[in-house]
Amino acid sequence: MITRADIEQARTRIEGRIRRTPVIGVDPGTFAGPAWVKLEFLQHSGSFKARGAFNRILAALADGELDPAVGTVAASGGNAGLAHAFAAAELGVPCTVFVPTTASAVKLARIERQGARIIQVGTEYADAYDAAVVQAEDSGALFCHAYDQPAIVAGAGTIGLELLDEVDGFDTVLVAVGGGGLMAGVATALAGHARVVGVEPVTAPTLTEALAAGGPVDVAVSGVAADSLGARRLGEIAYDVAVATGVGSVLVTDEDLLAARRTLWDYRRIVVEHGAAAPLAALLSEAYVPVPDERVVVVLCGANTDPSDLV
Amino acid sequence: MITRADIEQARTRIEGRIRRTPVIGVDPGTFAGPAWVKLEFLQHSGSFKARGAFNRILAALADGELDPAVGTVAASGGNAGLAHAFAAAELGVPCTVFVPTTASAVKLARIERQGARIIQVGTEYADAYDAAVVQAEDSGALFCHAYDQPAIVAGAGTIGLELLDEVDGFDTVLVAVGGGGLMAGVATALAGHARVVGVEPVTAPTLTEALAAGGPVDVAVSGVAADSLGARRLGEIAYDVAVATGVGSVLVTDEDLLAARRTLWDYRRIVVEHGAAAPLAALLSEAYVPVPDERVVVVLCGANTDPSDLV
Repeated sequence: MITRADIEQARTRIEGRIRRTPVIGVDPGTFAGPAWVKLEFLQHSGSFKARGAFNRILAALADGELDPAVGTVAASGGNAGLAHAFAAAELGVPCTVFVPTTASAVKLARIERQGARIIQVGTEYADAYDAAVVQAEDSGALFCHAYDQPAIVAGAGTIGLELLDEVDGFDTVLVAVGGGGLMAGVATALAGHARVVGVEPVTAPTLTEALAAGGPVDVAVSGVAADSLGARRLGEIAYDVAVATGVGSVLVTDEDLLAARRTLWDYRRIVVEHGAAAPLAALLSEAYVPVPDERVVVVLCGANTDPSDLV
Repeated sequence: MITRADIEQARTRIEGRIRRTPVIGVDPGTFAGPAWVKLEFLQHSGSFKARGAFNRILAALADGELDPAVGTVAASGGNAGLAHAFAAAELGVPCTVFVPTTASAVKLARIERQGARIIQVGTEYADAYDAAVVQAEDSGALFCHAYDQPAIVAGAGTIGLELLDEVDGFDTVLVAVGGGGLMAGVATALAGHARVVGVEPVTAPTLTEALAAGGPVDVAVSGVAADSLGARRLGEIAYDVAVATGVGSVLVTDEDLLAARRTLWDYRRIVVEHGAAAPLAALLSEAYVPVPDERVVVVLCGANTDPSDLV
């Protein structure tokens, strides 16, 4: 488990490295009570993952776990890979990213542009993950998990601390859940202050299934948000935090995600990736219905997407 | 001429009707000194024009100039048309928008979705404008200019007052110039506090040519930003304010606009229309070079654009 103190340390550690992202108000009357949206997709590398990546690398540099001559290894053809490549480049640390051969060419080009070495292994994420772990063990490089390491979760949790500064009183924070790093960090940061609800596609229900099974279990993953919320199972840290802090789970359909993403463009000129639209989708589809006067915050956590279907 | 008092009245008048848009910091080291970006494209109707539209209609309702049974008339197939249709619908006032037959089908559909009546006249903006003026005179409807009326300029100027609250000390504000309503409003609001620089495409140099000629003159208009900065001549109010407050003019090329718009997407996941990229283009292309420690604010004023070329 991680603690709020871990997140406060993370905030100090990554200050000046990450962007503090703004919060905007939702137009009055849109929902039952006041609501806010945190524009975390404006973060470096296009998603919240930069927070955990910087925290993991900086903490490991400070305590000697990371040899800056050897560098880091990550496995992800998506947001985590982009964030690790960005953070490593900023900190002058060599970085290798393992991806399956099916990873998006656009994202691979972006990862490569940061100077990371890319190794393509297998056709599934699990193949790339296994190869990354072996490489880290063999080379002595620092393995950076996409979501299930304390420093990664603590980095994501700094979003919760920022919300306490930015929003004057709120009851509930809705976040998207894939592996659960964002949810776990924010729920730990806000324990005793606000509740956290995890929103996930019916096509990738890692939190829902973990809560039902009494622990993380593999789920089948598909759908429009699979590129960002496509983790096959919830992280162990995420499960423990969800149970300890009472995080609820809400499911949305692919149609809900598409509609919420389009609404953000049509009425706000905001572009997000499909997975990042999940918390707003829960509100718009009424999969989550706030009680009267419930003060709700939605975190929009990523925009590594192709906007061409929004015309 | 308008005064700062006009803008303060506008702020009170439109409060609760318009969105207060956030300001974000530019990453340290990007320019010579600190810099900020105001995300005004998050405004209702996708551009700053909603501010002037609400102010014009609300002021005319208050003083009896607008008969709510007769309504308003505007001429614009672009941002001003969208904003007027939005504001009129919100205020329950009938609205007619004159557009040339060449106006974008996407924008017309958006205007129509607000419930406005659209009348297509001629192949050039000037034809639609002339028809709108005649219709307003014949019907007694309130004519709402796209940029050259005091209430329109004062509404846009509320952006300047917001900046005084949002940014703790700045020297220069860079804004895009088409007809000059935004520039004139912000320059009036900030007179004595900060200087304003107007940035315009070399393909639509209304401010540059007006300053050279000693008054607004018709210019040839073309280029990638013509849909938003395509006014053929600077407004009279804008010219008077520019001279009185010492607004400078900077020109950027279409290539500069394209590069700045792409940079915003690649490094910030922000989508703006080509014209709205003008102030950032001036900085990135070094058409405008801040002196050391000059504190600069960039206003991103609209995002009524097709994002599909940003893939």
